[in-house]
Amino acid sequence: MMEKIKPRTLSGFMELEPAMQSQFEKITQTLRETYALYGFYPLDTPILEASEVLLAKGGGETEKQIYRFQKGDSDLSMRFDLTVPLAKYVALHYGSLTFPFRRFQIGKVYRGERAQRGRFREFYQADIDVIGDGALDIINEAEIPSIIYKTFSELGLTRFQIRINNRKVLNGFFEMLGLTSRAADIMRTIDKLEKVGADTVREILLEEGVSADAADEILRFITLGGGTDGILQALEGWRGKNETLDTGITELGTVARYLSDFGVPASHFKIDLTIARGLDYYTGTVYETTMLDHPEIGSICSGGRYDNLAGYYTDKKLPGVGISIGLTRLFFVLQDKKLLNENPPASPADVLILPMTDDLGAAISLATQLRAQGIRTQLHCEKKKFKAKISYADKLAIPYVIFMGEDEIANHTVALKELASGEQTNTDFDAAVKRIQKGLAARAGNKVIVGS
Amino acid sequence: MMEKIKPRTLSGFMELEPAMQSQFEKITQTLRETYALYGFYPLDTPILEASEVLLAKGGGETEKQIYRFQKGDSDLSMRFDLTVPLAKYVALHYGSLTFPFRRFQIGKVYRGERAQRGRFREFYQADIDVIGDGALDIINEAEIPSIIYKTFSELGLTRFQIRINNRKVLNGFFEMLGLTSRAADIMRTIDKLEKVGADTVREILLEEGVSADAADEILRFITLGGGTDGILQALEGWRGKNETLDTGITELGTVARYLSDFGVPASHFKIDLTIARGLDYYTGTVYETTMLDHPEIGSICSGGRYDNLAGYYTDKKLPGVGISIGLTRLFFVLQDKKLLNENPPASPADVLILPMTDDLGAAISLATQLRAQGIRTQLHCEKKKFKAKISYADKLAIPYVIFMGEDEIANHTVALKELASGEQTNTDFDAAVKRIQKGLAARAGNKVIVGS
Repeated sequence: MMEKIKPRTLSGFMELEPAMQSQFEKITQTLRETYALYGFYPLDTPILEASEVLLAKGGGETEKQIYRFQKGDSDLSMRFDLTVPLAKYVALHYGSLTFPFRRFQIGKVYRGERAQRGRFREFYQADIDVIGDGALDIINEAEIPSIIYKTFSELGLTRFQIRINNRKVLNGFFEMLGLTSRAADIMRTIDKLEKVGADTVREILLEEGVSADAADEILRFITLGGGTDGILQALEGWRGKNETLDTGITELGTVARYLSDFGVPASHFKIDLTIARGLDYYTGTVYETTMLDHPEIGSICSGGRYDNLAGYYTDKKLPGVGISIGLTRLFFVLQDKKLLNENPPASPADVLILPMTDDLGAAISLATQLRAQGIRTQLHCEKKKFKAKISYADKLAIPYVIFMGEDEIANHTVALKELASGEQTNTDFDAAVKRIQKGLAARAGNKVIVGS
Repeated sequence: MMEKIKPRTLSGFMELEPAMQSQFEKITQTLRETYALYGFYPLDTPILEASEVLLAKGGGETEKQIYRFQKGDSDLSMRFDLTVPLAKYVALHYGSLTFPFRRFQIGKVYRGERAQRGRFREFYQADIDVIGDGALDIINEAEIPSIIYKTFSELGLTRFQIRINNRKVLNGFFEMLGLTSRAADIMRTIDKLEKVGADTVREILLEEGVSADAADEILRFITLGGGTDGILQALEGWRGKNETLDTGITELGTVARYLSDFGVPASHFKIDLTIARGLDYYTGTVYETTMLDHPEIGSICSGGRYDNLAGYYTDKKLPGVGISIGLTRLFFVLQDKKLLNENPPASPADVLILPMTDDLGAAISLATQLRAQGIRTQLHCEKKKFKAKISYADKLAIPYVIFMGEDEIANHTVALKELASGEQTNTDFDAAVKRIQKGLAARAGNKVIVGS
């Protein structure tokens, strides 16, 4: 007997049990179908890239986490997001792409972060981006909340809110106050408003050298209330004082104005002037999406408008807008909060056929016919006791079992048992198919996420 | 202006243009759906594993090609196939799995092979395996050709043949001839029969020290003709001389016997006693799949029965049967041989809406309504000339364009143009949806692969 190696999976790498994996697949499939409704190309790029290309932008914190290594003469890195590969892709294939270029990509990315619960080193991102050639209309920014809303609704999430802001509003406002040089610090500070409260934010602003007047003005500005219409109306009071601010107010208004046409209910949308999305990268609308009952999770879908996707590869100006869902983390949270639908359970088959005769021909033919009807069918022909086979169907949550004995073969009937109800019928093939399809249709409406 | 890095993709890494990527996605989607019909769980495992775990089996040639590196204290490797991760998965999660465990996995694997045309360092494999706990019935081996047949048929391939053999037949035959110790060499030699011919195979066998009588007997055996029934009948002439051979003949007969019940036409199946599938790994039925018009490509789907999936991780005996499709190479071949269906072209949207008014509300509402009907809809609101927008639809092969002007808004009509025919109609929303859906349904039957 050879010496055994202990099987293990690396820490920080999600590896799911089969039923959970099926739920995860349902999510990716829902995303693929929903994104496709909006006219996005599916895209795929390599996980490995030349380090020089992948790290063109530089950036200290990220660079430390990269899985980077030498293979022969090549300095290689595993991608740490889907944005840099998109930038490379668009710059590289610029000549053959048609703009606006709309793509979605669902793929694994790698960051060697410190391992801790709920943080992953290998994780899926699901990104969509619209890239313009030289220019990109504001309407693309208005469409994004629609995609976010539809995506999470299709997954079954109900208690969520899409929060938006516009970087031009913040930048213009700080410019107006003569605080442009401190804008980055101030944005970091006001981003904490919800967590630490207005008083603490004011204190920090003063510590950072912002005047008391300016701090008050900032707080008054970012805490404007009155819902979407109220905030937009209040912002009009600042119009005419700064060009960037004016543009931002107009853009924010445009995005809000087309919301209901885009199918986003007002209940699921909020203008939140405290949102800055840390990165310098964003230049217009920014998005965050929060689960109303689980604010501690933070944003589950974020992104924004940027003016220059691929500046480190090309002189072409490539503005775009995009969002990203951290799928692996989202899935971890859904599991953790018990928000995954267990009804219907994630079964690998709709029907399990148990042949009761030595000759398997009839049972196999039946399986072939059921599969031709699109019914996921499994044969169980192992030498095991009848009870063990029923238990197999139970454990895999296969809803229907068909027994194929001599009587059924002789009479050309199908003995169909629904495990949940225990109900058993003996009908002809067509009636059995109808009964199964009816049962499956009743389950098909069930979403992946429940209870939120 | 900052210095630019030249964007590039690593050699040996497939990165497709958007329309080609859409075709590739159609293939993976077809595979997911077809595999699911047979009751397989979708599985996903990390791309990175501990080197000790991934390379437990050892193996010189493969090991040289591995992308292996150190990160902190960890010795990591990128997976080079989906079989070793499956073995690890089953050994690791043994206690919570229900057997037979049926899973499919479509994922990227990595091999640092010498770069050359049509050979890839990052490539997709699409695997299915059925794993038993201690035992696994022969019927699972009989089911595999059915899955292969259905999969390639759904993709649109017609001119292909599934060739099978049984390692017990070969092993038993060599045992009978007293050639067990030379079995590996002999199998390698007879595997070349189709390429080099019987005379050369005989010569090599003699050079390898096989007696003339034995060489003749081997050649007579592996070139048995008469189709499936003829070969099976002829094999009966050898029955009773060796136990392993007898078992092999019975198994081969069982697999062949249920073919038509499993929906595999005789035209797409062949017993080929020269097939050995190099690896020592296989112990029963082995499979190869060839494109009849392109034999030079070799097998596009191979696999077989094995008795011990995870011997280097566990004492549990885990027999299984599986097949693998090298998707990236298959896709390369399909492109190369011009076998990808360009009708319908791989468009990212079904409808492009061109708003002709400043207020976009009506056009956006229309997009939302179409998407609710499952119609993939894109709005084109960029500041571009009308002609450029039509050309956009053309280039992306979007079949329908809808113009939303003041008349349409006032009259609540939809001006729908089918680009292929140039036909334009002005109807109400429901009629437009019906017309689009009818057009899309007509295209939906088209398969990914044509002309073969």
